[in-house]
Amino acid sequence: MGRRIVIIGAVALGPKAACRARRLDPEAEITLIDRDTIISYGGCGIPYYVSGDIANVDELFSTVFHAVRDPEFFDVYKRVNVRTATEALSIDRKAKSVRVRDLKTGEESDIAYDTLVLATGSTPFVPPVEGVDLPGVVSISNLHKAIMLKDQIAAGKIGSAVVVGGGAIGLEMAEALTALWGVETTLVEMCDHVLPQAIGPDLAGLLTRHLEDNGVSVMASTRVQRIVGDEDGVTAVETDKGTIPCDLVIFGAGARPNTAIAREAGLAVGPFGGLLVDARMRTSDPNIYAGGDCVEVRNLITGGSMYLPLGSLANRQGRVIGTNIAGGNERFDGAVGTFCLKAFDMAVATAGLTLAQAKAAGFDAVEGLAVQADRAHFYPGHKWMFLKLVADRKTRRVLGVEAVGEAGDAVKARVDAVAALLGHHPDLDDVSNLEVGYAPPFASAMDIVNAAGNALKNVLDGFSHPVEPSVFLRDILPDESKIILDVRSAKQGEPMTRKYGKRWINIPQDELPRRYDELPRDVTLHVICNTGLRSYESQVLLRAKGFTDLVNVHGGYLFARMLDPTIVPDEA
Amino acid sequence: MGRRIVIIGAVALGPKAACRARRLDPEAEITLIDRDTIISYGGCGIPYYVSGDIANVDELFSTVFHAVRDPEFFDVYKRVNVRTATEALSIDRKAKSVRVRDLKTGEESDIAYDTLVLATGSTPFVPPVEGVDLPGVVSISNLHKAIMLKDQIAAGKIGSAVVVGGGAIGLEMAEALTALWGVETTLVEMCDHVLPQAIGPDLAGLLTRHLEDNGVSVMASTRVQRIVGDEDGVTAVETDKGTIPCDLVIFGAGARPNTAIAREAGLAVGPFGGLLVDARMRTSDPNIYAGGDCVEVRNLITGGSMYLPLGSLANRQGRVIGTNIAGGNERFDGAVGTFCLKAFDMAVATAGLTLAQAKAAGFDAVEGLAVQADRAHFYPGHKWMFLKLVADRKTRRVLGVEAVGEAGDAVKARVDAVAALLGHHPDLDDVSNLEVGYAPPFASAMDIVNAAGNALKNVLDGFSHPVEPSVFLRDILPDESKIILDVRSAKQGEPMTRKYGKRWINIPQDELPRRYDELPRDVTLHVICNTGLRSYESQVLLRAKGFTDLVNVHGGYLFARMLDPTIVPDEA
Repeated sequence: MGRRIVIIGAVALGPKAACRARRLDPEAEITLIDRDTIISYGGCGIPYYVSGDIANVDELFSTVFHAVRDPEFFDVYKRVNVRTATEALSIDRKAKSVRVRDLKTGEESDIAYDTLVLATGSTPFVPPVEGVDLPGVVSISNLHKAIMLKDQIAAGKIGSAVVVGGGAIGLEMAEALTALWGVETTLVEMCDHVLPQAIGPDLAGLLTRHLEDNGVSVMASTRVQRIVGDEDGVTAVETDKGTIPCDLVIFGAGARPNTAIAREAGLAVGPFGGLLVDARMRTSDPNIYAGGDCVEVRNLITGGSMYLPLGSLANRQGRVIGTNIAGGNERFDGAVGTFCLKAFDMAVATAGLTLAQAKAAGFDAVEGLAVQADRAHFYPGHKWMFLKLVADRKTRRVLGVEAVGEAGDAVKARVDAVAALLGHHPDLDDVSNLEVGYAPPFASAMDIVNAAGNALKNVLDGFSHPVEPSVFLRDILPDESKIILDVRSAKQGEPMTRKYGKRWINIPQDELPRRYDELPRDVTLHVICNTGLRSYESQVLLRAKGFTDLVNVHGGYLFARMLDPTIVPDEA
Repeated sequence: MGRRIVIIGAVALGPKAACRARRLDPEAEITLIDRDTIISYGGCGIPYYVSGDIANVDELFSTVFHAVRDPEFFDVYKRVNVRTATEALSIDRKAKSVRVRDLKTGEESDIAYDTLVLATGSTPFVPPVEGVDLPGVVSISNLHKAIMLKDQIAAGKIGSAVVVGGGAIGLEMAEALTALWGVETTLVEMCDHVLPQAIGPDLAGLLTRHLEDNGVSVMASTRVQRIVGDEDGVTAVETDKGTIPCDLVIFGAGARPNTAIAREAGLAVGPFGGLLVDARMRTSDPNIYAGGDCVEVRNLITGGSMYLPLGSLANRQGRVIGTNIAGGNERFDGAVGTFCLKAFDMAVATAGLTLAQAKAAGFDAVEGLAVQADRAHFYPGHKWMFLKLVADRKTRRVLGVEAVGEAGDAVKARVDAVAALLGHHPDLDDVSNLEVGYAPPFASAMDIVNAAGNALKNVLDGFSHPVEPSVFLRDILPDESKIILDVRSAKQGEPMTRKYGKRWINIPQDELPRRYDELPRDVTLHVICNTGLRSYESQVLLRAKGFTDLVNVHGGYLFARMLDPTIVPDEA
């Protein structure tokens, strides 16, 4: 008889580990148990099922060759024994057995293991406020709930919704509700911007504007205080910024690892409540492995622990576990937190630390911004991309990257390339010279990642003193004592000088060499152009002419206007 | 007076170095000379100008803000002195001066330098055959020639063309001629497949098929012997495979570095005829820097020298040179050869060594293939991608990556991510666990780069014995003694068993556990499915049942049929 492998949890990591182990060890007895009746589905596809992009729910649990991944499939194709509707109640580590309950019959029994794998996943976090149990308040913890929700929406029963949480799930669900179904949707986020774990306020501002342009109301810095309704359903969400009437509340406020039976069995957990595993994905008990949403992973940038419940990590860890429980030896060393997201026609991609996270981790962190097209500027049809790098001031080590733009795959490409480096502790020179492919239909000769590296080096070398777009809009533009030098053309500058008066000075870059004497020398000049390139050059020229108090408006007019279209007079 | 910087060559690297130096050193006297009258143009955009994608030629020498980069622009915006129509004749390293001739007046003079930069570029290679000087035989060595060519084509004077050379320029020019202008175009390549410096025969096969589907005739393994014509123009190209009538011949057979004056001045050149430079981009004379198409670069994978004339490298090197000649200190350590290309609706991307290059460099090289969609298989609208990894058998070090597919940015994204690692000597585990971003609209949970890493590990671990698609078509399918086991459905297998008879055995994967005894045990079974996943699993099952002589057809039916649609009966 082969070794007895028992795996608790049959979504993502569990099936992956089971199938890999089976391929390496034809003799093993592999049992996969799950309390649910639907297994091995693509949970990350749920928002696209709700939106209608994916027409039939069975596509989420079918293979690429349209075979349905049910227990019979696992039996026939994979020779893995699957027990659905079976809940794991406890682990007896001494006896090496798992106590389970058959949820159909209520019967309890023990399953003996030589090796146990915990793939127990996570549960959506629901904040402890009044009303979370009302009908119409949902968190998408499994596919059944998604199916019920879609049926409700498709039946036209939902006119308005509040999505609590501006993370990935929250944004995807907000899009699903709005885009196809026209549900009036409000997204409520506790932090001061959406995706706070992934990006900083500037790029989040662009994303928020895009969400709002597509009909989602975004309320940041807003706390849910109470959910109001009765047995007929929810009627409103009360927040510290007012009451929002609605027929539906969806929680997308993050997830918590499912570790109850593991903790009861005495396995070690980390600061985020996830199981701690070594590089072979073993828990503190060498006969028990764990991976996916129920574990913490090592952050390859800080060296500390982090919680990163992502389907891609679960799949890669599943293969490592599958190899190791079959007697092999593979490692999973950690992660840098690469992440991407589609939000309507915009993509967000990010890896590593945001500026705030880097500062919190003790780095003297600074950021650089580049704005560039997704292809050579002379090649037709280009779309803007916005990319930030975060680095440590002294060591110049690159700590993070984030980007947004409408050319989704192109945005993701830049972040993936930098992400590949991040675990190798790159410095800014590595990113300045990062060798990404170039052809005019796909990139500029100096790619945006190179440009961002160069921009940040210029900052650290003292050649550029930037102000970020959101700070420019918050602190500089509204302050009538601040002087702005616009080096765009006279035609472009005219509406702005008309609106802001004498403090918005417009001298086109080509006239600056003979007109710089018109500029005041006793104040800070905030130099702006369209994206930040010519303002940087102008700043260099002015410094050569003896000006010392110069600030370069990062992202320029383009970024500022995308964040706040009202900065321009209506008739402009 | 500031330091005197003289730069020979005002396309790509020259202007980049000049402008960077100017920004760092306001006092320097910077002179940029070029024998041409058009400068600082995007040479990589020429094919798109010829094709008509770029409507006006001045877009190629305008900034993103539509300023024309002419000598006046450099004077006003950059404070760089440009002398066009000025040819550099010789360098006097002792006197530190460059002898130049004004091509308008014929006058010669000397320009003194403290620091000299050679940005002399390259010249298209024209093979030494009869007839290359005939009217209608062109190589696109500058923008003037491109303009003349386009005028000719647009005037309807070209009915048919031969493009000599299946490298990047050759492919781009073939597309330009065919796509918009309907010129009957034949591409002639000396090697046995197109892009031989960039990809192997399998992916080149897919590309060739795509070129042919779009009207380009591709003749590989073909040598040009003579070009035929008279003073009225070219009439045909004679090759060792026959004569091709044509009105136009374009050479796109690679480029050679322009180093004549540098060699005369005694500067060191490398095995490819390019100037040798150190990591600061200095030639063997510390007062002379060089970069772009006239230098060789260090191959970060082999440690040897290579010649890589790419606009992106020129730009990045230009910045490094600009910094260093202004007294700074930046490094350019070398390259892994990241490259991408659009060919009609297909993209090619590659980095590092091909299998053949790796073997030639002394590695015991092996390759792995993955076929996967550009997004989660359940997300609508997916397109196939084909990706190969090359690795060293013993050390498992990853040496190269290549990919093709219709989702251009997605194809490029995968290669860029692996390319970012290549200089860090990654092994297969690094690629298996490469942390690329995941969201269903942009990737599968197990990305194609991870899958390719896993596939190659399976090969090296002895779990998979593959045959590559082109070898399957060349050696296995035509050989009536070879047995094929098709594990796709009965419906899919039927046309093939009809065409190939008893040696094409069709047992669907789900029936294999109970039908394996039908299979012969005394022959090699070539297991095939649609893309190579189920054939791998079936091979694992059969090995567990005692079969030992199993071969997995990489890329499966999908890849084979894309390479050669005639393998299927017409009525299928």
